[in-house]
Amino acid sequence: MTASQVHTEDLPLVALAQQTRNAAPHLAVQPAEVRNRALVAIAESLTANAPEILAANAADCATAEAEGTSSALYARLKLDEAKLEGAIAGVRDVANLADPVGAVQIHRELDTGLVMKRITCPLGVLGVIFEARPDAVMQISSLAIKSGNGVILKGGKEAVRSCAALVKAIHQGLSETEIDPSVVQLLTTREETLALLKLDQYVDLIIPRGSNSFVRFVQDNTRIPVLGHADGICHLYVDRAADIAKAVKVAIDSKTQYPAACNAIETLLVHRAIASEFLLEAAPALQAKNVELRGDNGTRDILNIAPATEIDWSTEYSDLILAIKIVDSLEDAIAHINIYGSRHTEAIMTEDSTSAQIFLAQVDAAGVYHNCSTRFADGFRYGFGAEVGISTQKMPPRGPVGLEGLVTYKYTIVGDGHIAVTYTGTTAKPFTHRNL
Amino acid sequence: MTASQVHTEDLPLVALAQQTRNAAPHLAVQPAEVRNRALVAIAESLTANAPEILAANAADCATAEAEGTSSALYARLKLDEAKLEGAIAGVRDVANLADPVGAVQIHRELDTGLVMKRITCPLGVLGVIFEARPDAVMQISSLAIKSGNGVILKGGKEAVRSCAALVKAIHQGLSETEIDPSVVQLLTTREETLALLKLDQYVDLIIPRGSNSFVRFVQDNTRIPVLGHADGICHLYVDRAADIAKAVKVAIDSKTQYPAACNAIETLLVHRAIASEFLLEAAPALQAKNVELRGDNGTRDILNIAPATEIDWSTEYSDLILAIKIVDSLEDAIAHINIYGSRHTEAIMTEDSTSAQIFLAQVDAAGVYHNCSTRFADGFRYGFGAEVGISTQKMPPRGPVGLEGLVTYKYTIVGDGHIAVTYTGTTAKPFTHRNL
Repeated sequence: MTASQVHTEDLPLVALAQQTRNAAPHLAVQPAEVRNRALVAIAESLTANAPEILAANAADCATAEAEGTSSALYARLKLDEAKLEGAIAGVRDVANLADPVGAVQIHRELDTGLVMKRITCPLGVLGVIFEARPDAVMQISSLAIKSGNGVILKGGKEAVRSCAALVKAIHQGLSETEIDPSVVQLLTTREETLALLKLDQYVDLIIPRGSNSFVRFVQDNTRIPVLGHADGICHLYVDRAADIAKAVKVAIDSKTQYPAACNAIETLLVHRAIASEFLLEAAPALQAKNVELRGDNGTRDILNIAPATEIDWSTEYSDLILAIKIVDSLEDAIAHINIYGSRHTEAIMTEDSTSAQIFLAQVDAAGVYHNCSTRFADGFRYGFGAEVGISTQKMPPRGPVGLEGLVTYKYTIVGDGHIAVTYTGTTAKPFTHRNL
Repeated sequence: MTASQVHTEDLPLVALAQQTRNAAPHLAVQPAEVRNRALVAIAESLTANAPEILAANAADCATAEAEGTSSALYARLKLDEAKLEGAIAGVRDVANLADPVGAVQIHRELDTGLVMKRITCPLGVLGVIFEARPDAVMQISSLAIKSGNGVILKGGKEAVRSCAALVKAIHQGLSETEIDPSVVQLLTTREETLALLKLDQYVDLIIPRGSNSFVRFVQDNTRIPVLGHADGICHLYVDRAADIAKAVKVAIDSKTQYPAACNAIETLLVHRAIASEFLLEAAPALQAKNVELRGDNGTRDILNIAPATEIDWSTEYSDLILAIKIVDSLEDAIAHINIYGSRHTEAIMTEDSTSAQIFLAQVDAAGVYHNCSTRFADGFRYGFGAEVGISTQKMPPRGPVGLEGLVTYKYTIVGDGHIAVTYTGTTAKPFTHRNL
């Protein structure tokens, strides 16, 4: 290949990914103390570089304003002193979390002197693609280092100066530790996103953080495993045996506490026997919170609201809109959820424990709740200390994923010349298979 | 769409997959006793139908013979009385395994009266594609029912009569239980394989059992998660501090005990300091077992054998061929393995515990062994009771996968009207996060 044939625009990305790939195994074998000290060094460097970081963010914000960026995006982009301090405190918090690496999950004697262990270990290199939020750089880098993984970050173009200043400070912090700073890398151009998705030789897991359509784009354009979900169509089912006051309270929380969240409800299913009583109380309460209601025919016999059609049942509004459907039975509610739900989080309100048990057992979703808000579906609320993402795939990891989603395991066996033929055939020695 | 536009050849498959999809949730919620009783009923029905099954297999074998089938394939296809009895005993063994469903992995109070559990549950419907072995029908069906999953089986065309007779007996057994027989379905034509891979609406996991190229074909042609691996390039590294007698014994076992297995070694790495002494003893011992040796230049300075070239390092021979390479250090051995290995199973022979620790920590593979044969990489040998497959993906499940690979989990939370807003903002109530 002659020099002119080299795709020079690709070279930096591949070279950079190789650097991270090469640096990651060294990080992977560091004891927890070393990884935690690195996090403290990063926190100190971020504090020392705060003026530079805030100035870079101010420049990004000025550009965004000049380009007429939406206020929602601007709010996510903006990094003020309090937000930065909070994020730095978050880095120190990660240092204090339990170590996800090196946990012995199985410890078993296979035969005398032949001992197997299943031990958690880092995945290798993570590729994390996020949008405007520059604070994601700090959170993701600290979770990656805590779990012994290299990480290639791709931030949104709006935050390019902020991200560069943050990564510079992170590198500066790491340079004072035993960890090679190239375990954390930053990509900045949109073209690099697609290129990153093709690096299955160097990247072990892609974590996309962004809109549904973006996550779907990532899933459709990579052979690398993806931790993330595209849809959050969650339901609250108000059973005939529901306590109406509790049900109204939970419906309001599930819909309005943060309507853009994936664990907010989109559809309310109501048992016909309780429909009038419940809806006449719930509807004005929801409307008082500015929720637009849409109903099926049965609902519209009770409430004077707009109609909900087939498409409403499979729409994630991510907004203050709620579809309402009357169902004739618990079974109908479960059937509706198992058809239209995105397997994220589903809840039943009932005082009937048998109905609750049936719902918990038969609804197919990462989270199935009884008498509480769907908004609890969150790694922090689950007590994981941090949330890496929420998965709606069927196989584990499923639901909110903490640090354990960033590690895998390996089996080690230590023997003294043991061979398999000893345990085979008509004179086979039996295994002891004794857990230690 | 008019009747003439309907792809009638597709209809039976989709209808059949829907049947299994509809039957599976009922199976999923059955207690262990019901699932175990179903396995016993299947075992009894198989015994009762043995003459019919053996006759069907004899017909398959006659066709295979007439078509000049290879002796290896014929041996896999052939089901004699002893093999059938063994497989039926295997079905009863599965009934005696620990229940993988309903295990509580996390049990945590989030706040007073708000309790979370992470509970294992079935995946849903499995699609299992295998080649000539008809005994796979019995093994896979029993593992599926044990784990609460429906299963769509696609056997090889050579075994079509055998598989049909086996599934008929399984259905007959199930018809005497509470389990809908349509939880087990059989496909028989080659066209249905590709169609099955497209059924991501109905099938939650594909398990391909066959050649490397077949597994790769499956991985490249489905959006359904695949449990399986395409390559088994395993190494044995003989360190400078190896015990030569042990190393020779383990090398012979790792290569010759079952050379077609994915956990047999393809390459022997030998430290230069021990190369002459080890190879002059190992080579004649391996050659006496009919192993063809190929070596790099350093090896050929010691042994009069054929050359190994670059392509040998990345070839899975699955045969009595072994490539040998001299390395200058433990680090070189690890580097070679991390480049050419398929992340399956890797072993070191050494009496130096520091070298062993470095190898166990730094080699990236599902199994990393010290002073024992790579042939131990197997679900039965690991004490899992059954092996569903071996995974060389990086994310769990990794390595030999037992019944736990056929279940996932869901989070349940039970509250009493708890809402998320209580735990948010400046007056947020703290979570208790107390494990129960």
